[in-house]
Amino acid sequence: MIHTAVCDMLGIKYPIFQGGMAHISDAKLAAAVSNAGGLGIISAASGDVEKLACEIDQAFSLTDKPFGVNVMLMGANIDAIAELIAEKKVAVVTTGAGTPERYIPMWKAAGIKVIPVVPSATIAKLCARAGADAVIAEGGESGGHVGDMTTMALVPQVCDAVDIPVIAAGGIADGRGVAASFMLGAVGVQVGTRFLAAEECSISPVYKAKLLKANDTATIVTGKRLGHPVRSLKSPFSRAYAKAEYTDISDDELENMAVGTLRAAVVDGDEKKGCFLAGQISGMVNKEETAAEMIAEIFNDAENILKGASQWVK
Amino acid sequence: MIHTAVCDMLGIKYPIFQGGMAHISDAKLAAAVSNAGGLGIISAASGDVEKLACEIDQAFSLTDKPFGVNVMLMGANIDAIAELIAEKKVAVVTTGAGTPERYIPMWKAAGIKVIPVVPSATIAKLCARAGADAVIAEGGESGGHVGDMTTMALVPQVCDAVDIPVIAAGGIADGRGVAASFMLGAVGVQVGTRFLAAEECSISPVYKAKLLKANDTATIVTGKRLGHPVRSLKSPFSRAYAKAEYTDISDDELENMAVGTLRAAVVDGDEKKGCFLAGQISGMVNKEETAAEMIAEIFNDAENILKGASQWVK
Repeated sequence: MIHTAVCDMLGIKYPIFQGGMAHISDAKLAAAVSNAGGLGIISAASGDVEKLACEIDQAFSLTDKPFGVNVMLMGANIDAIAELIAEKKVAVVTTGAGTPERYIPMWKAAGIKVIPVVPSATIAKLCARAGADAVIAEGGESGGHVGDMTTMALVPQVCDAVDIPVIAAGGIADGRGVAASFMLGAVGVQVGTRFLAAEECSISPVYKAKLLKANDTATIVTGKRLGHPVRSLKSPFSRAYAKAEYTDISDDELENMAVGTLRAAVVDGDEKKGCFLAGQISGMVNKEETAAEMIAEIFNDAENILKGASQWVK
Repeated sequence: MIHTAVCDMLGIKYPIFQGGMAHISDAKLAAAVSNAGGLGIISAASGDVEKLACEIDQAFSLTDKPFGVNVMLMGANIDAIAELIAEKKVAVVTTGAGTPERYIPMWKAAGIKVIPVVPSATIAKLCARAGADAVIAEGGESGGHVGDMTTMALVPQVCDAVDIPVIAAGGIADGRGVAASFMLGAVGVQVGTRFLAAEECSISPVYKAKLLKANDTATIVTGKRLGHPVRSLKSPFSRAYAKAEYTDISDDELENMAVGTLRAAVVDGDEKKGCFLAGQISGMVNKEETAAEMIAEIFNDAENILKGASQWVK
């Protein structure tokens, strides 16, 4: 058994979080991951407070294990969402796009652990000072919204900067990634892309098929010009957008190009219009399985790799 | 002692390569690294065949240990450089920017090990099929010319793609990075940025000082628009160039902006005009030491981390 400070803090069996993926991470996926011993996470990125309340209630009905909610701090209805989370007393809240400073007292009063996603050592320090219980150091090889720094460079620098537990994210899909993260100083991992292929993940069949046949160079980052870079699978939409960024198209027109493209991928499975968010590790995700099968395999492999690590030292 | 297949293949004590850095990696630095038990590498990127011959001869006079030459396959005078290397019978040649297919027979006939730097699993497979002895899987967190993929995502996918030894590069500056690389399947590492701070590295004092005070987010990638992205420390030049990329400036003007900026950093130490190539790990490089001190510390730490890895499994 791999058991770390994060397991003790949250009461979970395996130190693995399922990343909060906008329009994707729902109660069904989160509960499946939590029931399998990880930490399932519901995304609140839609900004729909009522829908989020339903998802949280549903997750409580599907699992008696801890689960979390991921909040985009720059998203819509953020105050109402923060209050709902405090009211519902979920076990964990993870946050993206900024520091959750102003909500930390309310969440902590509700007994909720606060674990921000951080793109740099500086932001990690700010979060730790504000009372975060741990941080997720996420490298830009991840899918969805990405920072500049990569997991390999970011994790040790965040570990050097803060005294709270560090969870590694970005580019982790198997036992090798878990073992490598521990060597860098992390005590847990967050995995997004691999869970896209979980049986319990309700993305369109077109999205899932596109992921399963992706290779290592199948992703692209778009959106840098407007300051909101995202990583997705190469597609007619993402290629057209990437090209447009270097033309004299206005920022408004560019922004408009992306409207509705997430929904087109997740719900409609529209190969042409969809923006299929996924990380660089897509090439390693080759079969659909249950979340429980994935987690068992990842940690079985990680255990064997870590047990064998001393072989390198003669 | 950490001892791997790469040590046996090349007759080196530690499985660490010093990255071939254009206009920086000379005989003095390469010999220092080789004398310390790693693999020193001279850069042939200047395209100056006579100068390269001098550097190689000098390295032979400074060390009786194996060393290598790094060749940019898209650079100037590449045929003459390839022939010189074969003639001089250095131990190793590493290559960047393409596959070295057409030179492999000549180099192998001269008893030289050929180890291409690869940015993807596909290129790794091409190199293996062409007879490469190993590959260096380099993530885009590295300094200088960068690919899209990161070390964490690239190394395991390259390991799955080829049967020859894989050396990890990009984002590695200490024992943690070495240990993590091994967990991902690599049997060696290549380190560039940290060796910029070596006492034996002859960059301008301004360059070295800028590196030593850099933090984790001190680097920026420029040159994507022209298809030759490079990572450097943020500076008046790199910020101006990054901004210009999204304007209607012509490609020729953009290209012109970069002319002479490497020399301005390395030789002149011109804070304003210089392009100071460095990786994301710059924030972890905080002191000037000899190459031997760096290597001893890196491997002492890596040993302890690898020996302790099984602590995670209860």
